[in-house]
Amino acid sequence: MEAMATRIERGSAVCTLINVFTVAPERQGELVKVLEEATEQVMRYLPGFVSANIHRGLDGTRVANYAQWASREHFEAMLRNPRAQEHMRAAAALVEKFEPHLYEVVSTHQRSAP
Amino acid sequence: MEAMATRIERGSAVCTLINVFTVAPERQGELVKVLEEATEQVMRYLPGFVSANIHRGLDGTRVANYAQWASREHFEAMLRNPRAQEHMRAAAALVEKFEPHLYEVVSTHQRSAP
Repeated sequence: MEAMATRIERGSAVCTLINVFTVAPERQGELVKVLEEATEQVMRYLPGFVSANIHRGLDGTRVANYAQWASREHFEAMLRNPRAQEHMRAAAALVEKFEPHLYEVVSTHQRSAP
Repeated sequence: MEAMATRIERGSAVCTLINVFTVAPERQGELVKVLEEATEQVMRYLPGFVSANIHRGLDGTRVANYAQWASREHFEAMLRNPRAQEHMRAAAALVEKFEPHLYEVVSTHQRSAP
């Protein structure tokens, strides 16, 4: 599975979703679990799903999902899927707000060679 | 350079910064340019910089930076660097708001094999 790590690349044929959730610190762990279950049980089987990467905010009040879909249309079809909606409602019920936005990668930068 | 694409991996020794900028659509292109210049001219030479990836929001009103630093301490040292501060002020002057948060990767998920 190591070879399948998400890669961030300019010009790759993916549509990127970055969704930042604001959550009470005591619910951060539960939110992570709900997002992991949603991804493993539903999202990863949907057409056009490429990857999802769940991030825990170090200050306790954020969780972020960095996800890739084959296209905007695939992402929007997911939003209409009843099973996906069920999982999204479970996540929404735990959070103060969530801010999903779609992106394309415009440039990538690596550390300068030593 | 292809082999150096940013990889999102659980347990990797990086501290992840996701910074979402909210911007007027007519300034989105300029903001991307300012962030690219800041990264190429200053950030990538700073101790602990690993990668930065600039994303253009498809709705025109967002820009996101997905960046990796060797540690939280390296990121915080960058915040105190006068040259970095100069570039961050230039970006801040263009935007409505920016929301930088630090994260660790807790889980990664790939598409189900067909």
